[in-house]
Amino acid sequence: MSSEQREALDTLFRTGPLEIGGDHLKQREVFTRMLTSRPLPDDVVLAPRELGGVPVLEISIDGVAADDTLLWFHGGFYVLGSARTSAALAANLARRTGMRVISVDYRLAPEHPHPAALDDALAVYGALLDEAGGGFGRVAGDWAKGAVVGESAGAGLAAALLVAARDQGLPMPAAGVLFSPYADLTLSGPSMTGKANVDPSFTAEAVAVRARDYVGTADAAHPLISPVFAELRGLPPLLIQAGSHEVLLDDAVRLAARAARDDVAVTLDVTPGVPHLFQAFAGVLDEGETALRRAADFLTGSFASKAAR
Amino acid sequence: MSSEQREALDTLFRTGPLEIGGDHLKQREVFTRMLTSRPLPDDVVLAPRELGGVPVLEISIDGVAADDTLLWFHGGFYVLGSARTSAALAANLARRTGMRVISVDYRLAPEHPHPAALDDALAVYGALLDEAGGGFGRVAGDWAKGAVVGESAGAGLAAALLVAARDQGLPMPAAGVLFSPYADLTLSGPSMTGKANVDPSFTAEAVAVRARDYVGTADAAHPLISPVFAELRGLPPLLIQAGSHEVLLDDAVRLAARAARDDVAVTLDVTPGVPHLFQAFAGVLDEGETALRRAADFLTGSFASKAAR
Repeated sequence: MSSEQREALDTLFRTGPLEIGGDHLKQREVFTRMLTSRPLPDDVVLAPRELGGVPVLEISIDGVAADDTLLWFHGGFYVLGSARTSAALAANLARRTGMRVISVDYRLAPEHPHPAALDDALAVYGALLDEAGGGFGRVAGDWAKGAVVGESAGAGLAAALLVAARDQGLPMPAAGVLFSPYADLTLSGPSMTGKANVDPSFTAEAVAVRARDYVGTADAAHPLISPVFAELRGLPPLLIQAGSHEVLLDDAVRLAARAARDDVAVTLDVTPGVPHLFQAFAGVLDEGETALRRAADFLTGSFASKAAR
Repeated sequence: MSSEQREALDTLFRTGPLEIGGDHLKQREVFTRMLTSRPLPDDVVLAPRELGGVPVLEISIDGVAADDTLLWFHGGFYVLGSARTSAALAANLARRTGMRVISVDYRLAPEHPHPAALDDALAVYGALLDEAGGGFGRVAGDWAKGAVVGESAGAGLAAALLVAARDQGLPMPAAGVLFSPYADLTLSGPSMTGKANVDPSFTAEAVAVRARDYVGTADAAHPLISPVFAELRGLPPLLIQAGSHEVLLDDAVRLAARAARDDVAVTLDVTPGVPHLFQAFAGVLDEGETALRRAADFLTGSFASKAAR
């Protein structure tokens, strides 16, 4: 494997300027700079729009007539990041699947604690459903032509969206792909301490600061805040990917366990020795490349399987 | 999906003659009849042999020049079954991968409790390693050309074999595929009760009878009896498949969680609404077909990836 690549990435994180638990306004700048400093490929098209009253960024590949939509939720612990900070990874997956991305600029904490982000996610989801035959992937009646994808907090949000949409009787998408989900804001996973020494990205203490920002006066164990505690029955097939060097590893593991218990088709896909959201480094990390390939295969397979039914 | 297929299979199990917890001599006959009553395809070649002093059955497809070997361990709670009872499923996977199978006739409990089965597995594994360049898959120095596969108890045994082989400093195979692993003989998984109402194949009470047969005077929580309690570091990439209608579901889930914790590349792949070892019904159950396809892809991918390094 790519032990040199992995070590370089590790050093990058450990010596980088991002302090997840630091001043949120300053860290927003750092986070955005980190994720947008490299130019996007020339053929990536970014089109800001609004859906359901929520700002979104449509990300597509020039010349690709995408039928299907990936509804995308960025990472950043509900406090950092934006629709734009997901563009590089989202465009990469759009290219591999021939799909287009709607990346959601959901409102951020601490200015907007739970349930602001979820409300925004639901508004966009509802608008996409109403767009059947419209501009976003010629969405079918049961939204077979859409999937939800999330990174980190965005993966937790994507899971919460699916649970809330199911509870409202809305149609489910073809699939969900959750990259390194942040899905337990009580921080009760054993990996929070068990992986503390090997996670180069952040500590339980830093995460706790950001969790308080989003939870606000709510209960951190609420299933729509921490979907590891949710009833997941009725959700579409899920692919959950994580690196084994993550304090959030057990968020992924427990979400998968819960999905299995609740009769959801679920694949938990753990890559050893790599950090949180290693897929974002697909260009320089072999494991990121192969994991993204599996995610693309899962998505195209899920769409094909749903279309065949 | 195939809800009719699933219901038919369910009925088949619930009304079938197999009583896992019954008299072991009688149940051996029933189990063997169940799994060998349908003829194998004409081109499946069965060749009994001996490896490391242990009887094995070589299973291959006529006309396929297989380079790679699947070392296979049958199911039956360490009490029922034989190398031959795996032939249909093993031949199916051999065909899909272009590999040959060595199915092991390990000694059975209660006549031969732990560690007899594991000793036999290790003897065969060692013999395969020594056969480098020999008759079994032209095994490479690091056994890149072999994988271990197990069903149910055989999957638990395969996991225990990998742990024991690692502890002895033996080379690891390219991959492990564990179908519905029986990997906790203390029966402590929540699914033992949580899935009792939906598992058509067996009950915790029946499994407990068979667990006593194999554990004998040993400790059921010993990591080589119950690999959900083992340190798994150093194991090769694992694919763990299970149905969500299994009292053994949490054996699969916890084995995957352990592997992830221990930096093993692991994929947990849960199919909803299907019973224990649903892959054996690939011919009549769509979910079995697609799960076997994923297992074949995983194996060929693991071999290719190991060969490339």
